Amino acid sequence: MKRTGRKSNCPINYSLERIGDTWSLLILRDIVFSGKKTYSEFLDSDERIATNVLASKLVSLEREGILRKSPHPTDKRKDFYTLSEKGLDLIPMLFEMTRWGIAYDSKTEKSVKNFMRKYNKNKTGVIKETIKKVRAGGSVF
Amino acid sequence: MKRTGRKSNCPINYSLERIGDTWSLLILRDIVFSGKKTYSEFLDSDERIATNVLASKLVSLEREGILRKSPHPTDKRKDFYTLSEKGLDLIPMLFEMTRWGIAYDSKTEKSVKNFMRKYNKNKTGVIKETIKKVRAGGSVF
Repeated sequence: MKRTGRKSNCPINYSLERIGDTWSLLILRDIVFSGKKTYSEFLDSDERIATNVLASKLVSLEREGILRKSPHPTDKRKDFYTLSEKGLDLIPMLFEMTRWGIAYDSKTEKSVKNFMRKYNKNKTGVIKETIKKVRAGGSVF
Repeated sequence: MKRTGRKSNCPINYSLERIGDTWSLLILRDIVFSGKKTYSEFLDSDERIATNVLASKLVSLEREGILRKSPHPTDKRKDFYTLSEKGLDLIPMLFEMTRWGIAYDSKTEKSVKNFMRKYNKNKTGVIKETIKKVRAGGSVF
């Protein structure tokens, strides 16, 4: 039987079909934690995403309404990627993923650990503050 | 340059390398929300995972210490999969993924919507209660 369209009506599956892959989530991480906004900035990350993969992920994240693409404010040859409200609403999930990673991984940098300590003490407050910051063009670090 | 070992020291990347794929997260969903515990129960889900993919995901989730494998209490021919403490600690992330899915997906079932309404009102409480329930062998539904 040929599988067409979505695989189920489960909301977790809805999420996974949109952001359930390593590269999409690493792009979101780069925006939220490092304030990256351009193709070349995303390309430059430690995990070394391939150019064709990056290009296709940016297209699908924009199509899903998670990213917004606009002309770069100072360099018109570049595209400028920011999170939509739907994208900003993924920040709580991203933070939980980070918290779990830190809890079981000894290799986390001190700055990230310190930030997550703040988060663990006041999740709602830190999420609210971060969404506001990222919406205004900033980032965690 | 050949890429060996982990791609970076980022804790999100740590998480993604362990549970950042659709099928692993759907197995966790089946355990937490539906109380599934055996290979044949996982195989039976709407998303129709392939047998070889399921087998390999179960091996890697067990190797990462997220799942625990033990003999089935009533049918010794079967393996019995439950979440370790490390696996139970993924429940908050799973819930945030569900919340996001429901917020942007019109197709969610009423029972899931109602549960998440409860979660939105009292996240910490519902997470605590669910971890306790799943640890004892139960599930959300």
